[in-house]
Amino acid sequence: MPLVPVSEVEDVADRVLAAAGVPPENAVLQRDLLLDAEMRSIASHGLLRLPRIVERIGNGVANPLTKGRHSWTAPGFLKVDGEQGLGPVVAQAAIDALLERAKTQGVAVAAVANANHIGMLGFYADRVAKSGKCLIAFSTSEALVHPWGGRRAMIGTNPIAIGLPTGYGIFMMDTATSIVSMGEIHDHANRGASIPLGWALDAAGDATTDAAAARNGAIAPFGGAKGYALGLAFELLLTALAGSAIGREVAGTLDSTQPCTKADLFIVIDQPLAAVSDFVALLREEAPAEGFSAVRIPGERGRDLRRQALESGINIADVTWSRLQDLAGTAKTTED
Amino acid sequence: MPLVPVSEVEDVADRVLAAAGVPPENAVLQRDLLLDAEMRSIASHGLLRLPRIVERIGNGVANPLTKGRHSWTAPGFLKVDGEQGLGPVVAQAAIDALLERAKTQGVAVAAVANANHIGMLGFYADRVAKSGKCLIAFSTSEALVHPWGGRRAMIGTNPIAIGLPTGYGIFMMDTATSIVSMGEIHDHANRGASIPLGWALDAAGDATTDAAAARNGAIAPFGGAKGYALGLAFELLLTALAGSAIGREVAGTLDSTQPCTKADLFIVIDQPLAAVSDFVALLREEAPAEGFSAVRIPGERGRDLRRQALESGINIADVTWSRLQDLAGTAKTTED
Repeated sequence: MPLVPVSEVEDVADRVLAAAGVPPENAVLQRDLLLDAEMRSIASHGLLRLPRIVERIGNGVANPLTKGRHSWTAPGFLKVDGEQGLGPVVAQAAIDALLERAKTQGVAVAAVANANHIGMLGFYADRVAKSGKCLIAFSTSEALVHPWGGRRAMIGTNPIAIGLPTGYGIFMMDTATSIVSMGEIHDHANRGASIPLGWALDAAGDATTDAAAARNGAIAPFGGAKGYALGLAFELLLTALAGSAIGREVAGTLDSTQPCTKADLFIVIDQPLAAVSDFVALLREEAPAEGFSAVRIPGERGRDLRRQALESGINIADVTWSRLQDLAGTAKTTED
Repeated sequence: MPLVPVSEVEDVADRVLAAAGVPPENAVLQRDLLLDAEMRSIASHGLLRLPRIVERIGNGVANPLTKGRHSWTAPGFLKVDGEQGLGPVVAQAAIDALLERAKTQGVAVAAVANANHIGMLGFYADRVAKSGKCLIAFSTSEALVHPWGGRRAMIGTNPIAIGLPTGYGIFMMDTATSIVSMGEIHDHANRGASIPLGWALDAAGDATTDAAAARNGAIAPFGGAKGYALGLAFELLLTALAGSAIGREVAGTLDSTQPCTKADLFIVIDQPLAAVSDFVALLREEAPAEGFSAVRIPGERGRDLRRQALESGINIADVTWSRLQDLAGTAKTTED
C-alpha cells in the first residue's frame, strides 16, 4: 500500500462520482465524508464504500441530486424526507438548516428518514463544533447487534457522536453501540484471524471466536446490558421520531439494491459555552495505568492521523484504490 | 427486613421532610423520587439518601423552598440556576417548563447548575414518557470514574436516561457511564465480598478485587474506551452549557456540607411518534442465549418490582428504616 497524495484520491473520487451523475456540490460532501474516515484510519467507513454508492445510484436506490425535502413541524423541529438522497448530502443540508434555526431558537432538532448511509457521524460533529456550536448525532442501521441475552441480530449498530468547542480546540467523540463494527469482523475473517470471545455469536446464536462464523451471526452490544439499553433506546427514539423501519426490517445500509430505511437524528445547540479546555489538558497529563502509554482524549488519534495523511498521503488499501481507479478510468472513457 | 407498606414509608418520609422545613409540594417530589428508586430495588438512589438531604438542609447547602431561577436565553433554551434547591424540585420545575414550551417549539432544552442531586434519572424519563413526550436526560456527578487508561477518578458517573411512549406502554432506560455505582462497591465492601477484576482501581491506580480498597480508588467506565468517551462527552457538554464545575472540582453529591456543583441537562421533544410497540414485543419473544432465561427490555424489571412493592410493601434495609423512623420521631417531638 503506497501513500497516495490526498489531492490524487480526491481527484479519482470526484471523477467516479461525476461519472455516476453526482453534481459537484454533492460529490464534494460524499467524497469528503469518505476521505475523512479513510484519513482517520476508519477504513470500514472510508473509500471502500464508494463503489457500492455508485452501484446504488445505478440501481435507482440512491438519488444523486436531492438534498431531501424539509418540513418544519414546529419552530424547533425539522422532519426530513431524504428522498433516497446521498447520506452526507441529506445530512449536511439538514444540519445547515438546524444551524441557521438554532441561531434564534437556541436548539433545533432534525429527524431524517429515507436518506442513504450518512457514514461516520464524527464528520458532522467535527464540522458543527468547528463552527462553535454543539451537535449530538444518532443513526440506526441494519440489524447487526444481538439484544443482551439474545441470539439473533435485532438492533442496529446505532452510533452516537457528540461534538463541541472546548475553548482552544474541538472535542469530538463518535462510537457505535456495538462492541466492534461488522467491518472489523470481516477484516478478521479475511486475515484468517480469530476474534475474542464476547465479540459475536454465530448463526445459531452461540458464542464464537470464529470470525467467518460471526459474519453470519450477530455482534455483541458494547458494555453488555448497558450498551444494549443505549442501542435499543436510540433505535426506538429515532424510529418513532423519523417514522422509519426498525430492527430486522431496516435495509439498504449494506447492500446495493434496497432503498435505505434507517433513521438519523441531529440535535444542534447554539448557546454561549463555558470553556472546558483546562479539563481536557488536565486529562492528557494524567498518569497512565499499567499497560497504557498515555490517557487519550477521544477523537485525538483520528485527528493526528488525519493531519499526517494530509501531509504525507493516504494509506489506502490496494484493492480499494485499484477499484476506484478502474471506476474513474471507465468514467474517463465514457466522457471521451 | 420486613415488608413495609408504601403508605407507611411515605408517611415517615413526609414527616422527616416536613420537620426539615420542606413545604408539602416539594416534599412529595423528593419523597416520590427516593421511593421510586427504593421500589425498583435501586437502594443506592433510595431512602438511604434522605438523612443526608436533611443534613444538607440543616447545613444550609440545600434550600428546601426554591424551585430554581429560570432564564429563557432563547425560545427553546432554558438556563436554570438551581439556587441549591432540592434536586427533584428543581429538575421537575425545569422539565415542566420544557413540556409547556415544547408544545409550541417541538423541542426545548434546559441546562441546570447549582441544584442538589436529582437522583435516578429514569424517574423523570418515566414521567415525561407517561405524558406522551420524549425525554433525554443527563447528569454529571463528583469524579468517581477513571479515564480509560488512567489511574485516578477524574470523571463523574454521568448517567443518561431516555424515555418515550411506544404505543402501548412506555420505554425507559437509565444507565450510568460507570461499570457499577460506588454504592455497589460499598455494598461489596460492607459484606466483605471481593469485586470482579475490571470494576475498579485502588488509591494507587492499580487494578484491584478488594472492594474496601476500591472505595478510595476509581470505578471503571462501562465498556472500556467507548464508555469513557461517552462519559467524558457528557461531562464536557453539560459543564459547557450549564457553566458548572468539572472533574475533581465537582462537589456536593455525596457529602453533607458542600454546595452541589454538578450539572444536569434535559431535552424534551414533543412530536407525533410512530408506534414502535410491535418491536418491543418481538424482542421479548426472542430465544434467550445460553445462561439467560429471557431477553429483557430495559426498565421492565424495575417496573415489575415497583408494582410488587405497591402491592406487598417495600423491602427497605433495617438500618435505613430505623434511621428514618428516628428522624420522623424527633420530628414529632419537635412539633409537640
